[in-house]
Amino acid sequence: MASRVVRDTEKESEILEKCKSFMSAPVTDVQALQQRKDEMSTRMEMLIMETQSAFCRALEEVDGGKFRVDQWRRKEGGGGISCVLQDGKVFEKAGVNVSVVYGTLSEDAARQMRSRGKELKGKDGKLPFIAMGVSSVIHPHNPHIPTVHFNYRYFEIEQADGSKYWWFGGGTDLTPVYIDEDDAVHFHSTLKEACDKHQVQYYPDFKKWCDRYFYIRHRGETRGIGGIFFDDLDKPNKEEVFNFVKSCAETVVPCYLPIVRKHLNDSFSADQKNWQQVRRGRYVEFNLVYDRGVKFGLATPGSRIESIMMSLPLTARWEYMHEPSKGSPEAEMLEVLRNPKEWI
Amino acid sequence: MASRVVRDTEKESEILEKCKSFMSAPVTDVQALQQRKDEMSTRMEMLIMETQSAFCRALEEVDGGKFRVDQWRRKEGGGGISCVLQDGKVFEKAGVNVSVVYGTLSEDAARQMRSRGKELKGKDGKLPFIAMGVSSVIHPHNPHIPTVHFNYRYFEIEQADGSKYWWFGGGTDLTPVYIDEDDAVHFHSTLKEACDKHQVQYYPDFKKWCDRYFYIRHRGETRGIGGIFFDDLDKPNKEEVFNFVKSCAETVVPCYLPIVRKHLNDSFSADQKNWQQVRRGRYVEFNLVYDRGVKFGLATPGSRIESIMMSLPLTARWEYMHEPSKGSPEAEMLEVLRNPKEWI
Repeated sequence: MASRVVRDTEKESEILEKCKSFMSAPVTDVQALQQRKDEMSTRMEMLIMETQSAFCRALEEVDGGKFRVDQWRRKEGGGGISCVLQDGKVFEKAGVNVSVVYGTLSEDAARQMRSRGKELKGKDGKLPFIAMGVSSVIHPHNPHIPTVHFNYRYFEIEQADGSKYWWFGGGTDLTPVYIDEDDAVHFHSTLKEACDKHQVQYYPDFKKWCDRYFYIRHRGETRGIGGIFFDDLDKPNKEEVFNFVKSCAETVVPCYLPIVRKHLNDSFSADQKNWQQVRRGRYVEFNLVYDRGVKFGLATPGSRIESIMMSLPLTARWEYMHEPSKGSPEAEMLEVLRNPKEWI
Repeated sequence: MASRVVRDTEKESEILEKCKSFMSAPVTDVQALQQRKDEMSTRMEMLIMETQSAFCRALEEVDGGKFRVDQWRRKEGGGGISCVLQDGKVFEKAGVNVSVVYGTLSEDAARQMRSRGKELKGKDGKLPFIAMGVSSVIHPHNPHIPTVHFNYRYFEIEQADGSKYWWFGGGTDLTPVYIDEDDAVHFHSTLKEACDKHQVQYYPDFKKWCDRYFYIRHRGETRGIGGIFFDDLDKPNKEEVFNFVKSCAETVVPCYLPIVRKHLNDSFSADQKNWQQVRRGRYVEFNLVYDRGVKFGLATPGSRIESIMMSLPLTARWEYMHEPSKGSPEAEMLEVLRNPKEWI
């Protein structure tokens, strides 16, 4: 009994210590986090805050600039912390966003939150929910440094009978402007390693899911060279799925930062910058036309538009009938987007 | 009888003569147009071709550049002519597109084509249709020259009992980067004049519809300062609606060209160019998130993506938390977008 109390106190002071290293105070009061320290919602909120701060610090170090930090509240319940570094030395626009929102959902809205709809029964048709996640999109200046995106999220919905329905989702994916085989292999291997610690089927399954999800249908192209993507993950149990998500979140910095450093001083031409701008246009097309997160955000009352639109590049370009010349590095990139590859 | 034959021959040679002045041969064979010279589909195809060529010639004259002209075919039936002038002296991107497509629709798709759905009965659930229109978006370099958009279209659907169901839609609207009261008054007065020749209620009704339609809900802003917009117009009769649409189409050049000429040599600062780029970002948001024409195009099998995406600006920008300073001309613009005005 005594050792239990000691462990509790240790955990509480650990939470307090960690909070000091975050980009801002967490959305939930530190005291509330301490009181509910063993609940999944607390552990996930700590994880997304840690991921945000680890990624922001790593980017600040390589860029030399500082993130602007905005805390925001949602009047319907919850809020978030948006960190943005705009027009830095390395990054044109880097956004890392945490949100923790709660309230009640209609049965219809609850079904739509899942990628594979499921019937949930609420009390008088209403279901209390909590949704939280960290998401980030980084657009560098240099066309030889790829854009990266990641998102890790957790949902909990309470049914009329008091049972809690929960799932995790997430993914990390890379959008280069030019193919660098070594970068692609490094990125995918790092993800595979994180996956393999948990389930050997995760990497192959979630790699395919990623190629399928980040697909610009009207162009017949994927957005980038993929990575992993998963949703509705609620097996084998909460503990194991959380540990998997934790491994993924911890792999964001080792996935991306070595690639940034490698290309930091690569020279580039005006034509290469132009091609990057055209690809940025496609990025915008995917995000505004297809992305479920953006659609959900734009349709959610009280959502913070600037944090949703943070994922769009600072600049983009649409050229009529742009088609790279045969055999060019631009055509090689397009070929991969039209026919996703196995990198490892 | 003899005079009827003479009139027919006159009309046929008139069609032939007009075709020579178009940007390219029309989608429908000239002979077929001559044979069906009195049908609405022929008269409308001639009107949209004339509108395209009149507008393109007027823009070429002021820009000094030449439109690239692409004829394209849709394997499911029909085709179009896309005219694009990119990176001209005055225009960053100017697109004027004509399309004439036909085939069969499911009852479900037929309902969705109307802005206010209507049940239509097809033979075995299939409905032959023809849809045609001219549409254009012009993005100038100079932030003091506004972007203009117009679209005039005609639909015909044949029901199982052989009855033809038809309607017209269209509109012209202006998206300035800065408010110029005189420009706004000129633009709206010219449209009102065209409307008033047909129905005094048209301008006030269609002005309101325009403000409602070109609304970026998630920003709480209209896309521009409006103009007119209407859909599903099938009253009082085909002849009168066509004459109204003709008046609107003929007013495109007098609406816009005087504004272009007036600001041709206006000087501008880097900050003003930047604000234009931010507004262009909002233009992209509207077109990709809300525009029914774009949604319909992206979802239609065999549609020509480059002609749909032609409406997007050459360049656009998304700045995090961009907010003009109080009392600035940028803030004045935003104020009007948040609270649409009556200009005349």
